[in-house]
Order: sequence, then structure tokens, then C-alpha cells
Amino acid sequence: MTHAPAIQDDYPSDVAHCYGCGRLNEHGHQLKTVWDGEETVSRFTPEPFHTAIPGYVYGGLIASLVDCHGTGTAAAVAQRAAGVEIGTGPAPRFVTASLDVQFLKPTPLGPELVVRGRAVERSERKVVVEITVSAADVVCARGTVVAVRMPEAMVGGE
Amino acid sequence: MTHAPAIQDDYPSDVAHCYGCGRLNEHGHQLKTVWDGEETVSRFTPEPFHTAIPGYVYGGLIASLVDCHGTGTAAAVAQRAAGVEIGTGPAPRFVTASLDVQFLKPTPLGPELVVRGRAVERSERKVVVEITVSAADVVCARGTVVAVRMPEAMVGGE
Repeated sequence: MTHAPAIQDDYPSDVAHCYGCGRLNEHGHQLKTVWDGEETVSRFTPEPFHTAIPGYVYGGLIASLVDCHGTGTAAAVAQRAAGVEIGTGPAPRFVTASLDVQFLKPTPLGPELVVRGRAVERSERKVVVEITVSAADVVCARGTVVAVRMPEAMVGGE
Repeated sequence: MTHAPAIQDDYPSDVAHCYGCGRLNEHGHQLKTVWDGEETVSRFTPEPFHTAIPGYVYGGLIASLVDCHGTGTAAAVAQRAAGVEIGTGPAPRFVTASLDVQFLKPTPLGPELVVRGRAVERSERKVVVEITVSAADVVCARGTVVAVRMPEAMVGGE
């Protein structure tokens, strides 16, 4: 492992294939969410072809980062609430019930994107996460993810 | 061209590189939005690696389809309001101001996804589009895109 332990490294291996954040998806983005104090952070550098209008990042990628950072943050929050820290035990798996993204300004294509999350509401079943996406220290998008515990029935759907 | 003329075929070539829907992005999804009466429709079959939990489509792809179908629908609506039909003249380019996706149920990975849009609000500058994403005739996600005319300053940002 060449990075600090991330919540996605604690996902059970039968639910670690997400294109956005699954460590077992060789085609995907493999987003990694770690704690930074009371916030979570992920970093991702888009490829040159992840373009919207030339020079800017396409919105679908930003939505994907918000989505996966949201479910990852929900998992980390639930894991910590259970007394487990990232890298020391299994993590519960959350899925997205709703996703909202506000594109505040065009996101320049080139710099690393920094995605920060903070849980603003938590119950046993649901975590609401507020997220920012920044490029070169400028917040370009804000998002909200309502994440819910994965229904058991989803496992084995392949 | 092996498909009916789509709004994305009418985008000027300097703004036709979007990963989600640009005809000039060889790495991207090349989504194609056409009219179907008063609605618009796009069709997209995910790749096997576009997975969330195994067996289901990852949310970031669904958000991307909603996003690009939303801006495409906005362009088609504005084009039609100017008296031009798809395939007979240039289309204006819209970008996303906000994107909201409700994941109603897990989207099975395998079937073609059908994305339908309808403009519910239109001004010269802004179009609001409501969207459904269906698999095997079941609506799995709903979305709303607020699309605004691309600022002129965005062109040439490469």
C-alpha cells in the first residue's frame, strides 16, 4: 500500500468493486478517503480527457467524486461511531440515496482536486455529508450526499 | 453517422469534447440526445466495469448521464425555440449550474439505460430539465438539472 489507510481499504472484498472508489476495480478511479481531523479528504487528479468545455473538468466526474467521497465519509463516520478507526477493522458499506451538486464555477482541468467532507447528520441507518471540491485552493463545487446503509439484499447481485 | 442526428452533433467543434457527451472525445461516453415528441431521450449501455456493488451501476455514471442529458436537452429546447431542429443548424451550448439525483432503487448492470428529459422551465439564459433513468422499463433514478448558457469566457480555456 503506497498511501495512508483509507476507508475504502476496509470495505469487505465482495463490495469493493465500485468504479469510483473500489480498490478491486482496476478500470476505476480508486478514490481514497482518509480522516483529516473532523473532516474527511480525498484527492484526485483528472486525466486530460476528463474534459467538459476544453480546459475544464466535466461535471460527471465531479459528481462521481462527491458521490463516492460521500459514501466513504458515511462509512468512516459509522465506523468511528462503532469505536473502530480506519485501518483497524472492517467498515460498513453505504450507498447513495440522493446526490446534489452545485457547480459554483468552472473547475480547471490540470490541478489535483481536493474533496472534503463533513457529516452534518447521523443516525444508525443514514448519514448526511456536506462536501466541497477544490482546485488550487478554490472551492469550485459543493455537494450534499444522503448515504444509507447498503441493503443486505444488494450483495450477491452480480 | 450511424445514428439519428443528435443535439451533440450540432455543438460547435470547439465545445464538443465533453467526456460525457462530446463527439470529439474518443475516450468518453459520447451520449446522444434526440427528440421523442416533447421529450428527449438518450440511450447508454454501461460497461461491465461501471459497477457499484457488483451487479449494479455505479451512481457516478448515472449522475453523468443525467448531467449530460440535461445540458443536451437544454440545448435542444433553446435550439427549437430559435426555430431550428436538430440536424439542421448549430446548437447553443449549456453548462450545469446544479445537478440533483434521487436514486430510487439499485440500477441493474447489464440492460441498456434509457434517459428521458423534459424541460419544466425555460428562459433565455436558463433551462430546468427533469430526467428519469430507466433500466428494463423500470425508473431507477430521477434527476433535475439546472442548465445555463455557457459563459463566452469559457471557450478557449484549454
